[in-house]
Amino acid sequence: MPEPVRVAVAPDAAPEVVTAVRDGGGVLVDASAADALVWTDPLDLDGLARTLASSPARWVQLPFAGVERFVAAGVVDPARTWTCAKGVYGPATAEHALGLTLALARRIHVHARARSWAPRTGEDRERTLDGATVVVVGTGGIGTALAGMLAPLRARVVGVNRSGRPLAGAERTVTTGALPDAVADAAFVVVAAALTPATRHLVDAALLARMDAGAGLVNVARGGLVDTDALVDALRAGAIAGAALDVTEPEPLPDDHPLWTLPAALVTPHVANTWPMALPALAALVRRNVARFARGEPLEGLVDPAAGY
Amino acid sequence: MPEPVRVAVAPDAAPEVVTAVRDGGGVLVDASAADALVWTDPLDLDGLARTLASSPARWVQLPFAGVERFVAAGVVDPARTWTCAKGVYGPATAEHALGLTLALARRIHVHARARSWAPRTGEDRERTLDGATVVVVGTGGIGTALAGMLAPLRARVVGVNRSGRPLAGAERTVTTGALPDAVADAAFVVVAAALTPATRHLVDAALLARMDAGAGLVNVARGGLVDTDALVDALRAGAIAGAALDVTEPEPLPDDHPLWTLPAALVTPHVANTWPMALPALAALVRRNVARFARGEPLEGLVDPAAGY
Repeated sequence: MPEPVRVAVAPDAAPEVVTAVRDGGGVLVDASAADALVWTDPLDLDGLARTLASSPARWVQLPFAGVERFVAAGVVDPARTWTCAKGVYGPATAEHALGLTLALARRIHVHARARSWAPRTGEDRERTLDGATVVVVGTGGIGTALAGMLAPLRARVVGVNRSGRPLAGAERTVTTGALPDAVADAAFVVVAAALTPATRHLVDAALLARMDAGAGLVNVARGGLVDTDALVDALRAGAIAGAALDVTEPEPLPDDHPLWTLPAALVTPHVANTWPMALPALAALVRRNVARFARGEPLEGLVDPAAGY
Repeated sequence: MPEPVRVAVAPDAAPEVVTAVRDGGGVLVDASAADALVWTDPLDLDGLARTLASSPARWVQLPFAGVERFVAAGVVDPARTWTCAKGVYGPATAEHALGLTLALARRIHVHARARSWAPRTGEDRERTLDGATVVVVGTGGIGTALAGMLAPLRARVVGVNRSGRPLAGAERTVTTGALPDAVADAAFVVVAAALTPATRHLVDAALLARMDAGAGLVNVARGGLVDTDALVDALRAGAIAGAALDVTEPEPLPDDHPLWTLPAALVTPHVANTWPMALPALAALVRRNVARFARGEPLEGLVDPAAGY
C-alpha cells in the first residue's frame, strides 16, 4: 500500500475533481503542504504562480490540453513535473469539429440566419462529405478521434503532421511540408494542431490561396494557427467558400470584427470542450494520474516545457 | 444476351441517368414506346400522369424516396410496377440529420446568429453526444445509416419502428407504441420515418410533453410527421430546448412563420438530399434496376401502392 499522495486542488475545488483525487488514493491538503497540485482554472496564471511560490508540489496537473499560455508566462518551472489534459478532450473537440464541418457542408450557418425558404435550384451548394477529401492538420487526440468519426461518413481523410506517421483511418498522411499540396485537393481543411512558434499562422494567405474556391476551413485548436486578416480577405474575395472557427485571434473576437457579419463565416465562442463537458474526462484523468504518481509510474499527458506542449 | 430494355427518361433526360440506362443494358426511346419509364422530376405529377396516359411502360422508376404525393394523386397505377429511390439516399439524409443534431447539441444555430462573443459561464449549455441518448424514429435507410454515424460519437442509440426489429448499432429498438416512454429519456429525437396516414403527426403535443426540457427534435423525413403548431408551442414554452427541421408542414414554410424567428428553431430548406447530391446514387440505382428488369429479376425499391411507400 503506497503512502497517500498529498494533493491540493485549486483554485476551485470542484467536487468531481476532489472525489477523483480520493479515488486515486490521494488525500486533500493545502497547496503549501502538497506533493501534487491539480490546477482547475485554465486562465488564472497569476493565481497559479502565487500558489506555486509557496508550494513544494513536485507535480502540477493543468486542466486543459493547450498550455501555451502557461509556458509563455514562464510558470511552467522545469524543476517540477507538469501534466496537462492533452488527449482526454480529443473526442469532445473532434465532435465539435465534425459539427462545424457539417455546418459548412450543409450551409447550416447560412440557413440559420435565413428568414425565408430558399427554393431548390437544381444547382444547390450544399454538399455531402461522402467522397469529399478532408485534410486533418494535427494527428493527436482530436485528429485521431475526428478520423474515426469521419469513417462512417465515407469522407477521404488526409492526415498532416510533422513526421508523416500514419493517422489511423486516413487514406494517407503527409508531413507539414506537404500541407500546401494537400489543401489544394481538399473540400475541407480542419486545423487540430498544437500552437507553437513553428505552427503560428500555419494557415496564412499563401496556404488559403492554394485552397479550392468551394472549400471550407475549420479551426478547433487555437486562433493563432490561422492568420485572421488573411482569412477575412480570402472570405471576402470568395477565395474559399466558408470558415467555421471555434477559436480566434484575437480571442474573444471583438464586437466590430468582420467575422461576425461575413455570410461565409461561422464563429462559435470556444465551446468545443466546455467546463461541464470536460469535467468528467478531467476527473477520470486526475484519478489515473494520482494513482500513477502514488506508485511512481509515468504520468499521462506530460508537458515538455521546451516544446511548449 | 437479353433483349435491350426500351427505357424512356423524362421529363429531364439528365446525362447521368441516360448513361446509367445504357450501362444497365437499356436503349433510350420515347415514353410512347417504352417498356420502362424513369421519371426524373419529384414534383411534376401532372406531367407524369400525361406521360403515362400514352405509355405502355410496365415499370416506372420514381426519382426520390418519398412517394406519398404520387400515391395521393392516384398516379401510382397498380397495373404497373413502381419503384422509388428508397434506401439509396439514406446516407446523405442521415448525414444531414447528424449535422442538425450536432447543430442543436453545439448550439451552432444560436452562435451563427450571434454578433458578439459569449463568454464561458461554467454552466454552458452546449452538450456532447458522448453518452447522450438519441432516439431514431424509423429504421430504414436513413435510420440505419445514422446509427452507424453515431457509433464513433459514443451516443446511445434507441431505434423505433413498427415491429421492434433491431436496428443495427442501437442499444435497443422499441415499437412505435413505446415511443412516448423512449422520448422521455432522450437528449435528441430524430424523425426518419415514412409519412403514412398512421405516422401523420406522430410527434404531437402529447409526445413533445414527454420530452426533456433540455432535449432537441430533428426532422429530416417529412414535415407532416410533426404537428408544427404543437412544436411552436413547445419551443415557446421551453418545453424542449430546440428543433432542427429540414422538412416542414406547410412546406415551403411561409415567410411569416414563427419558426423563422424562434431562437431555439433551425430550419434548413429540404436540402438533406439535393438533386446534385442525389444524382450519382439515382444513376447507380437506375443502372442496377434496368439490368434487373432486363433479366426479369426483382427490382430494388419496390413501392407498395396500398401501403403508400
